[in-house]
Amino acid sequence: MNKVPLGIPKGTRDFSPEEMVRRKYVLNTIEKIFQRFGFMPIETPAMENQTTLSGKYGEEGDRLIFNILNSGDYLNQRSIASVIMYGVKSGNVIPGNSKKLTPFISKKALRYDLTVPFARYVVMHQNDITFPFRRYQIQPVWRADRPQKGRFREFYQCDVDVIGSNSLLNELELIQIVNEIFTFLRVPKFTIRINNRKILAGIAELLDASDKLKDITIVLDKLEKIGMDNVQKELAQAGLSAGTIKKICSLLNIAGLNEEKLKAVKQFISKSKIGKEGVEEMKQLFDFIRSVDILNANIEFDLSLARGLDYYTGTILEVKADDVDIGSIAGGGRYDDLTGIFGLPDVSGVGISFGVDRIFKVLHKLRLFPNAESLGVSTYVMFTNFGEKEEKYCLPLLEKIRGVGIPAEIYPEHDKLKKQMAYADEKNIPYVILVGSEEMESGKLTVKDMKSGKQDKLSIEEFIMNKLKK
Amino acid sequence: MNKVPLGIPKGTRDFSPEEMVRRKYVLNTIEKIFQRFGFMPIETPAMENQTTLSGKYGEEGDRLIFNILNSGDYLNQRSIASVIMYGVKSGNVIPGNSKKLTPFISKKALRYDLTVPFARYVVMHQNDITFPFRRYQIQPVWRADRPQKGRFREFYQCDVDVIGSNSLLNELELIQIVNEIFTFLRVPKFTIRINNRKILAGIAELLDASDKLKDITIVLDKLEKIGMDNVQKELAQAGLSAGTIKKICSLLNIAGLNEEKLKAVKQFISKSKIGKEGVEEMKQLFDFIRSVDILNANIEFDLSLARGLDYYTGTILEVKADDVDIGSIAGGGRYDDLTGIFGLPDVSGVGISFGVDRIFKVLHKLRLFPNAESLGVSTYVMFTNFGEKEEKYCLPLLEKIRGVGIPAEIYPEHDKLKKQMAYADEKNIPYVILVGSEEMESGKLTVKDMKSGKQDKLSIEEFIMNKLKK
Repeated sequence: MNKVPLGIPKGTRDFSPEEMVRRKYVLNTIEKIFQRFGFMPIETPAMENQTTLSGKYGEEGDRLIFNILNSGDYLNQRSIASVIMYGVKSGNVIPGNSKKLTPFISKKALRYDLTVPFARYVVMHQNDITFPFRRYQIQPVWRADRPQKGRFREFYQCDVDVIGSNSLLNELELIQIVNEIFTFLRVPKFTIRINNRKILAGIAELLDASDKLKDITIVLDKLEKIGMDNVQKELAQAGLSAGTIKKICSLLNIAGLNEEKLKAVKQFISKSKIGKEGVEEMKQLFDFIRSVDILNANIEFDLSLARGLDYYTGTILEVKADDVDIGSIAGGGRYDDLTGIFGLPDVSGVGISFGVDRIFKVLHKLRLFPNAESLGVSTYVMFTNFGEKEEKYCLPLLEKIRGVGIPAEIYPEHDKLKKQMAYADEKNIPYVILVGSEEMESGKLTVKDMKSGKQDKLSIEEFIMNKLKK
Repeated sequence: MNKVPLGIPKGTRDFSPEEMVRRKYVLNTIEKIFQRFGFMPIETPAMENQTTLSGKYGEEGDRLIFNILNSGDYLNQRSIASVIMYGVKSGNVIPGNSKKLTPFISKKALRYDLTVPFARYVVMHQNDITFPFRRYQIQPVWRADRPQKGRFREFYQCDVDVIGSNSLLNELELIQIVNEIFTFLRVPKFTIRINNRKILAGIAELLDASDKLKDITIVLDKLEKIGMDNVQKELAQAGLSAGTIKKICSLLNIAGLNEEKLKAVKQFISKSKIGKEGVEEMKQLFDFIRSVDILNANIEFDLSLARGLDYYTGTILEVKADDVDIGSIAGGGRYDDLTGIFGLPDVSGVGISFGVDRIFKVLHKLRLFPNAESLGVSTYVMFTNFGEKEEKYCLPLLEKIRGVGIPAEIYPEHDKLKKQMAYADEKNIPYVILVGSEEMESGKLTVKDMKSGKQDKLSIEEFIMNKLKK
């Protein structure tokens, strides 16, 4: 066999043990909180049928889906014919025609997010599901994005949704979940911005710009990035009148407490039915929020929050870490007809998605990761190995330590002590137990605390009682 | 948007909350034991470069790899030219030429196992790794196998390996890990069969059949399935003489304790250097095994164990549940040059892979799954919802229950009590707390034990102390 070039596809990553321990810490925390709120896990396949995914993410999204080549001899008469028809004209290539060939040679694709597979799941299993259905899903997704700093082609999403309930209690719970997760992860300051699509719709309606609602939301979403001046410019480009733009901006500029803002918006919006609905929902949600302890999150009613996705119809929310300028670390909202496309109309749901990679960066920047040692997942005790007699003597001792649930190992080779200690050092193992003829005779083991360098003579029972069971 | 047909690709699965709870129970048990033995997790991308995977699994395996279509306008001049060259001849299709086109339109593929990506990982990161490297990896793999009962196109593998150490202590640890995992999972009887490739090589050498070693291992592997008569037939077909076949079968027929079998083989094999090495290794391994507590596993030296894979060079092992006829539930062995193909020769490793789906079936058949309730991951307490006042009253109580780590929820809608109780019933929620005006006034909640049907009147503190903290 020949040596093959090394590497992994661009935009993908290997995760080392050190990185995995930290990733698991984040994912396990998120999962634990999801469970505490009565959400249950599901998993869907990495591959979905093309018919399930295509057309769901807009033209841009569709292009970013990874397609899987059909198995076997996929070049059948039909696909060949289509290559000839679309792709080749007297020996020349017509650019852009790959897209036309793809359906003939690819029936499956990797999932692009967890939302569409979830909608497909709910419709497909509707007869087995107990509604309201509270589910979470933590799985990787794949996107053929141009790789760039902080963008990956394979990354995890953590979604939590309730489907089949209109109650704003569900929105409250999502806010509580956000609060608990970032409190657990010890993020010192974070802000949950909340808005309601119905309020935005009401504003557009009153400004006679209902047909421009989509443009308005897209432009508003950019406020933080491009500033108010550019928002005004872009709204003008979208065809809104100067008066309308002025009105929108004056609304965006309302300052004060959430209640004050809400009051001002309520006044403006009183003549729009949908707008009033939105204000009522916001009022009730803030009312719920006041009745529970949300100690750490800063909660902000933000009229400029719009969120790009088409399918949101009610509450929308987005979370940022105040101290790290990295964009939103979680976001979601209510959708009234996500499952309609798969044949189950009029089922309302609400959910939020946590961005693992960004949360990871926040914890990294703020140095909030606990050390691996305190997480109890990496080797805590290592026995040295001085020879055949010694290793056999150590085996039952090793069993005792593992028996109390402590990760432990014995160095497997009869290498020089220096090499064995270097191994323990590199792996950040807190305790090394040295066993030679003296120790075997007395039963008192030499226990080295690798941080302090201090050595103790202890029996295995003393070591377990004094050093491990504290 | 139009309604689209529902379904998932054949050979793939959705996992419902009920299934996920059980799967997590199995995977978490396996992971916990891996960690206790000082193994650390890594993860590799779902996609690998074609150059990494191709040629590693034999012709059959190569055909089962899922290829990913290049992104963007993949039909460039070169791939079109190749379609014309290979695929089309005056309008007709030449069968089998898809294989020739694939390299032009697919640079990536889904991983087929965890072994090859692991070897690639070790070589690529060799300067960052502390050897001996003890890693585990629990991730899905994909194979375009013909879907059939119990065969899937997406399934999890759980691999644990030590690389960079020749010591048989590593083999011992794998056996201990197997013993611990199936003990934890409460599988009542399971057998670990052990053999050594060097013994098989020694036997072949002494029978002047070294060139037939591969054929012999392939045929031996089928013994259990096809019986001794057919093994003899197939060995004859492979070109072995009647005398050689007789000798092999007499060795296979040696009965008795492991030590007795080993003694008989030792006698036969004394003139083969490699064979003697194999016997010595087995002897030392059994010696190690006797010095620790392996209480539950039945350990059996089995000369007929061969294991198909090419890369094994020393100890091989395979695990079966005695009470369920389902094939091996774990298997592995020592390989001396897995990383050689990627440019790092002469690094010995040993590992074992657990088959999650089969383990799952064993637990299912033997009814060994604990109920979801005892795993503490599904809703344990539900508050009913009689109206706006009541739900607001319940919110702080709900926080208290979640605060002690118990999964709890409030029914989000003001539905009829019957519907709410049916929901709790379907979700197997053990306790339902009913809160109406009487309960709000007295602070004594009506707590219904859903199994017994018994109702108690308790304050939230009494409920937590008496029902949850036991």
